[in-house]
Amino acid sequence: MSHKLLILAQDENKYRTLIEEAQLEDLEFATQPADDVDIVLGEPSRIKAALGSLPALRWVQSIWAGVEPLLDPAIRRDYVLTNARGVFGELMSEYVIGYLLAHERKIFQRREAQKNKLWDESDTGTLRGKTIGLLGVGSIGAEVALTAKFFGMNVRGYTWSSETSRHVDEYYHLMEPSMDSNSSLFDKQEQAPALHRFAHGLDYLVNILPNTKDTRKIINAELLNALPPHALVINVGRGPAVDESALIEALNENKIAGAVLDVFEKEPLPKDHPFWTTPNLLMTFHTAAPSLAEDISNLFFENYELFLEGQPLMYQVDFEKGY
Amino acid sequence: MSHKLLILAQDENKYRTLIEEAQLEDLEFATQPADDVDIVLGEPSRIKAALGSLPALRWVQSIWAGVEPLLDPAIRRDYVLTNARGVFGELMSEYVIGYLLAHERKIFQRREAQKNKLWDESDTGTLRGKTIGLLGVGSIGAEVALTAKFFGMNVRGYTWSSETSRHVDEYYHLMEPSMDSNSSLFDKQEQAPALHRFAHGLDYLVNILPNTKDTRKIINAELLNALPPHALVINVGRGPAVDESALIEALNENKIAGAVLDVFEKEPLPKDHPFWTTPNLLMTFHTAAPSLAEDISNLFFENYELFLEGQPLMYQVDFEKGY
Repeated sequence: MSHKLLILAQDENKYRTLIEEAQLEDLEFATQPADDVDIVLGEPSRIKAALGSLPALRWVQSIWAGVEPLLDPAIRRDYVLTNARGVFGELMSEYVIGYLLAHERKIFQRREAQKNKLWDESDTGTLRGKTIGLLGVGSIGAEVALTAKFFGMNVRGYTWSSETSRHVDEYYHLMEPSMDSNSSLFDKQEQAPALHRFAHGLDYLVNILPNTKDTRKIINAELLNALPPHALVINVGRGPAVDESALIEALNENKIAGAVLDVFEKEPLPKDHPFWTTPNLLMTFHTAAPSLAEDISNLFFENYELFLEGQPLMYQVDFEKGY
Repeated sequence: MSHKLLILAQDENKYRTLIEEAQLEDLEFATQPADDVDIVLGEPSRIKAALGSLPALRWVQSIWAGVEPLLDPAIRRDYVLTNARGVFGELMSEYVIGYLLAHERKIFQRREAQKNKLWDESDTGTLRGKTIGLLGVGSIGAEVALTAKFFGMNVRGYTWSSETSRHVDEYYHLMEPSMDSNSSLFDKQEQAPALHRFAHGLDYLVNILPNTKDTRKIINAELLNALPPHALVINVGRGPAVDESALIEALNENKIAGAVLDVFEKEPLPKDHPFWTTPNLLMTFHTAAPSLAEDISNLFFENYELFLEGQPLMYQVDFEKGY
């Protein structure tokens, strides 16, 4: 039996070339939605628009980690959704370490000094001995934890309940879910103690959580107040994790030392958004961990093998949990 | 028998407190040069000025790696000179990785974009798969090599003859010394082939060599021409290793992508030096790896133990070689 793949991505040609070169068994290509397409590879937003014209759909491989467009409860869920995982950890680690070092090494300050012809030999900070807190320790968080340990940091991890990375020194957990399906999965008030213990005394806070109703605005005024004033906040997870006005207030009032944001509630960020000019806030425009076609294709090859064999696919998304 | 220590350093009080707390056996302190001082700990430049008033001097522990002021052939060498080693590797690694990531991640470009309210999602580079060349693989170079391997780089090492770090993938060597004591230790012309093979195709060139007559201007026009135009040059070794006018020309003509300099022929850099405004040149004002009093004191404690026991001291400097 032959399978038909539709690629819905800006880099369609790149993906097609890579997949053709791999000469996968029993795989043909479609160039547009059709009745016999059973596999789709691509960007969740483009796939969402095509879902009505794909009656034979069985499997969607997202080339992104985030699959929000496909989680809308009003649209179909009668296929297996797998996302991109295991390929962003190293890029995210480079990003996090790069911005932590830019902060400790005063990279921007020294460049200003150079412009002003000032010999700025003020003290340099180090990563060694610092404490980093990871909100979320999945495959990306585990890679960031490993890298943080390499540089001699203390690593705290905040997760639902898992303790899978051995590079995390101390775990803090969300409460167990309540059984009341009408409320949020758990009472946000009850999170506070563990989350505040987690935040207390952190040098760096890094959010890597997916976007779910339980992670929205997890970086709020309370959490920001629990951080020491020298703390740096990095968001490489999802925009909605940050309460934007609370962050702006914290930065304006020097409650924290700085923030580095890769993701936002709305992207591209609107021109009139206060983030553009908030002091000590750096933006990186969702470039922290690009989906590299080579990486994603390799992941697709492995999953296609499993698909052919009727085995469970890797990196399946739970439509309810949202990750 | 009791020993008398003189501390000649800007951080004298800090060192004295740390050493007093360690309650070393048979050790007293002097507050100025005196006939019975047999040990000096401090900065080479300050020690040089005191050498004439220290008749009982037996051992000098430099708190810096570089000991040039004490290598002047016109001044005494009738004592054991040890320098600071084994304590700068991690700091140097943070510095090198920090600036490599600033380069790959376009940290300055994205900040400019933010100032101009531009959503700059241009491609991000990665360290993975890049090739770094280390000029000098002593204890610092070995630590940089380890860190480079952690980030998935290919590592080349250029050394006199040693191949001590297993984190270097490929070694390139200086020629063996000639026996003619009137010439340089080796003919610079003969270095060229190995040095050029080393430089060919490098993404990053990092100098960590000490300052000796054989390392002066090792980064010259020829070497810079051998690098690809996307290469980044970092100097954390010694200023004289760089032929300054050749570097300025290479940057002005875009023969290389950029340079990051921590050290200079003359420090602080004179106000009228062209480096201040050379394009794609970043300066860090000799802050890459500060001598931390805690680190240096620990090194002094270990050496003092050996000194008491009459054992050879660690990190002895060969006055002839200069390191």
